[in-house]
Amino acid sequence: MKYTDKLSQRVIKVSNHIIVGLDPDIEKIPHIFLKYKNPVYEFLNRIILLTRDKVCGYKFNLAFFEYYGIDGLEALNMLLKEVPEGLLTIADAKRGDIGNSSEMYAKTYFEKMNFDAVTASPYMGVESIAPFLKYEDKFVYLLALTSNAGAEQLQMLKTESGYLYETVIKLFREKFPENTGYVFGANHLKEIKHITKKYPDLALLIPGIGAQGGSKQDIENNINNNLYLMNSSRGILYSADKNCTDSEFDEKVIDAVNRI
Amino acid sequence: MKYTDKLSQRVIKVSNHIIVGLDPDIEKIPHIFLKYKNPVYEFLNRIILLTRDKVCGYKFNLAFFEYYGIDGLEALNMLLKEVPEGLLTIADAKRGDIGNSSEMYAKTYFEKMNFDAVTASPYMGVESIAPFLKYEDKFVYLLALTSNAGAEQLQMLKTESGYLYETVIKLFREKFPENTGYVFGANHLKEIKHITKKYPDLALLIPGIGAQGGSKQDIENNINNNLYLMNSSRGILYSADKNCTDSEFDEKVIDAVNRI
Repeated sequence: MKYTDKLSQRVIKVSNHIIVGLDPDIEKIPHIFLKYKNPVYEFLNRIILLTRDKVCGYKFNLAFFEYYGIDGLEALNMLLKEVPEGLLTIADAKRGDIGNSSEMYAKTYFEKMNFDAVTASPYMGVESIAPFLKYEDKFVYLLALTSNAGAEQLQMLKTESGYLYETVIKLFREKFPENTGYVFGANHLKEIKHITKKYPDLALLIPGIGAQGGSKQDIENNINNNLYLMNSSRGILYSADKNCTDSEFDEKVIDAVNRI
Repeated sequence: MKYTDKLSQRVIKVSNHIIVGLDPDIEKIPHIFLKYKNPVYEFLNRIILLTRDKVCGYKFNLAFFEYYGIDGLEALNMLLKEVPEGLLTIADAKRGDIGNSSEMYAKTYFEKMNFDAVTASPYMGVESIAPFLKYEDKFVYLLALTSNAGAEQLQMLKTESGYLYETVIKLFREKFPENTGYVFGANHLKEIKHITKKYPDLALLIPGIGAQGGSKQDIENNINNNLYLMNSSRGILYSADKNCTDSEFDEKVIDAVNRI
């Protein structure tokens, strides 16, 4: 099944656009999980159990898993098996490399780990991302206009065909209209309006809701397709106190998801 | 010790600028290594033993290690311990992410693995790379003008302050003159000449020698500092036939290094 079909089916089913960002930070994980051999796995597995009926899927932030070495890799592989059919899994990798290296990354995420989608950096051009794009049922979110401070230093440079982020979209979308989407920070509401007016069926991945200050309502009011996802991470993962009990943890996480 | 001091000392000691790119591909590794529990480790450890007195250091292509999962990660950690003092180690990661994710990557490569340098993608701006740059004795190579086909699609877009790759250098070098270097493909000789004329002490990392067609002689004739490195990977790693004996392997690798 095409990724965008899977995505819109899920959005309709759960009536929201939330993807939960899994950024495991052992310093912030409640103490109840620290007694286990692999706290990262136990913590996130509980998050998945508590949220899986209510959200579109999960975005795994690979920086955090890589930091925990073999434990992190084992947690990642086990967690991917815990995500039920129909939910989306995104590898937040932001990779972008020459052909044979990109091919190895693509094989790792799409074949070995069976992610539905990855995030990638466009800086090295279309050819550098092509190894990801040959998988017809998979999907690539290219960095366009990101949520971090200073994102505009390069991304909003003026080029002959508009701002750099517009040139990125034009380049990739022209060649791969079917399986590319774009990352826009929730703080760039004006540009989100502009770009979805230009391309009404553009699939966006929108971080920066909640902890980073973007408004969910503003996004919902300004996009008229079923193909966008809003990432929420810290607001759900770290909603409970570090000294919480098991039942307090469950309650806080469920509350956080329902609120969002 | 500052990275650039370590680098120029090593260049003077071995009288060359070669960094060996470690891109382990199990399909290409000679059969003599396949009997071991971890062929990637055994193969690259032998490469390091055969070349360590003759080269500046090693560039680990993380795409390839990540592909081999836990075996790849174990090989990476063990190999880093096999590189003698004084040689350089570069994590070819091409990462670039928002602050807290970049911080995790920086801690992984600089603290846990103790690499001397990483490669990074500039697309998300200076702030996204800052977590790597706060390590005074470490170093970051930003992608500037890469060796792949189609690199110029974005990197040679005209912006108000020159081509995009020039804007990248200007931005990062202004803020971090001490610990940033830049990746230039050996095929972009004209631009290498231009940029090292403008910044005579710019530290370049130059892939695309050998298998990708760039000429080592051309590079040497056109850069007048001790701060550049030329990457050679396939020409050394896969110089021996897949059915070679142990002694044939050693001979071919030593020949390849001496020739380069």
